[in-house]
Amino acid sequence: MSTLSRIGVAIEAELLARFDDLIARRGYTNRSEAFRDLIRDELVTDTAEAPESAVVGTVTLVYDHHVRMLSEKLNDMQHHAYHNVLSTLHVHLDHDNCLEVLVLRGTAAAVRRLADALISTKGVKHGRLTITTSGAGL
Amino acid sequence: MSTLSRIGVAIEAELLARFDDLIARRGYTNRSEAFRDLIRDELVTDTAEAPESAVVGTVTLVYDHHVRMLSEKLNDMQHHAYHNVLSTLHVHLDHDNCLEVLVLRGTAAAVRRLADALISTKGVKHGRLTITTSGAGL
Amino acid sequence: MSTLSRIGVAIEAELLARFDDLIARRGYTNRSEAFRDLIRDELVTDTAEAPESAVVGTVTLVYDHHVRMLSEKLNDMQHHAYHNVLSTLHVHLDHDNCLEVLVLRGTAAAVRRLADALISTKGVKHGRLTITTSGAGL
Amino acid sequence: MSTLSRIGVAIEAELLARFDDLIARRGYTNRSEAFRDLIRDELVTDTAEAPESAVVGTVTLVYDHHVRMLSEKLNDMQHHAYHNVLSTLHVHLDHDNCLEVLVLRGTAAAVRRLADALISTKGVKHGRLTITTSGAGL
Repeated sequence: MSTLSRIGVAIEAELLARFDDLIARRGYTNRSEAFRDLIRDELVTDTAEAPESAVVGTVTLVYDHHVRMLSEKLNDMQHHAYHNVLSTLHVHLDHDNCLEVLVLRGTAAAVRRLADALISTKGVKHGRLTITTSGAGL
Repeated sequence: MSTLSRIGVAIEAELLARFDDLIARRGYTNRSEAFRDLIRDELVTDTAEAPESAVVGTVTLVYDHHVRMLSEKLNDMQHHAYHNVLSTLHVHLDHDNCLEVLVLRGTAAAVRRLADALISTKGVKHGRLTITTSGAGL
Repeated sequence: MSTLSRIGVAIEAELLARFDDLIARRGYTNRSEAFRDLIRDELVTDTAEAPESAVVGTVTLVYDHHVRMLSEKLNDMQHHAYHNVLSTLHVHLDHDNCLEVLVLRGTAAAVRRLADALISTKGVKHGRLTITTSGAGL
Repeated sequence: MSTLSRIGVAIEAELLARFDDLIARRGYTNRSEAFRDLIRDELVTDTAEAPESAVVGTVTLVYDHHVRMLSEKLNDMQHHAYHNVLSTLHVHLDHDNCLEVLVLRGTAAAVRRLADALISTKGVKHGRLTITTSGAGL
């Protein structure tokens, strides 16, 4: 564990009140812990912007499996880049709709490229990429 | 303009150094201003979907499984809300770090509440909620 | 003793060669006897749990995603029975081969029916059903 | 695709009738396909007996997460052998019981060792290892 530094932060009283309200609703009991999480989140987002940095990402896709050849296409795209796909969780939401979550690993550039290709495939109703970190160094 | 409050925040020295480096690259000359921007951004993101709307969400968590009792706590929280947890995919990233993706379903309020509780648990290094839809009606 | 029937079986030459090698190592001197043992073993395994008992099962499938329409077919079969499929984990083993694990829940009859249908689909190289319990009452 | 060989098999009429009944219930429309699947299954089982052969396996575990420290222990064991664990799917069956399916890869010896250790952990109600194949060569 790293040693703790204590710093002072100046915040408008009203903004602080709203922040305290937000973190209370989120279940934080310690304001410093909430600040540390904000910082870590920001560092993760920043790392993800350097295309050669090593990242882990999850892609969430919702699609209608009745769209002709869509399962085939999405599966093929994943296999084509299988070194970047750790695994995929598939949930059958209802008679029509699938949710898939893929866990990706690789350079930020490769992860974004695959996510963009999947999300932009015709028939995918909604898709989101979350870039996160392998946890090392945070 | 609201009056300024001064608060103290405890941050691991190494994390603070990385944050200072990040905000310097982004052109901030004042650390408090950077914190205020983080807070404002978080408040904007928090603007609620209607809390009773039916949503599907995925939560991505990265944590160190060596943190005492953390696996237990996260598993207990999920079971306590098991009607909202469709399933969880766990990937062992390296000797220390786990990535978990949970597929959640329920009201926006219930999904956010569980996601917030998981993400704010001490020892979780990074967490993100992606709200999506069940696909019906799109 | 029952009278013998003679039937014809079509087998890929390479697969047959490997089977002949296997049964030679096991001491069979008669290929038909080896087939009869396989069948008997399968019939024993088939002895039913009560078809209406509530079970949880996992089905492991390995298949080549290049087989035309196979991903589509397997996904359609799962959606058709989506009340029995809790979720599916998909791992891309290499450029060609997929492993899927499905978590099923329902009556033993419904779980077996779906598992049998998936495993017997042409193009699925290997499939196994593991029936387990929901844990309640153990 | 390999060329097909046609072979003749002698089977007791009664045994054949029961086999035809079994495969009809399982949805096979082609008896040769059913025989090929039996052979492949047997070859997979055989490969799994050579301790240095490369295999893929799935382990299904059912356990009560209330058992003190059990989630911790199972997670630690998996991390200790994380090179063999491709990913883990966790389903919360009810308020008490968890089902976990792990996808393992490695030598048959390493996969069996990890599966045995997990399944024999106190508090695990039921566990099964399914050895399968990476699909290459079948």
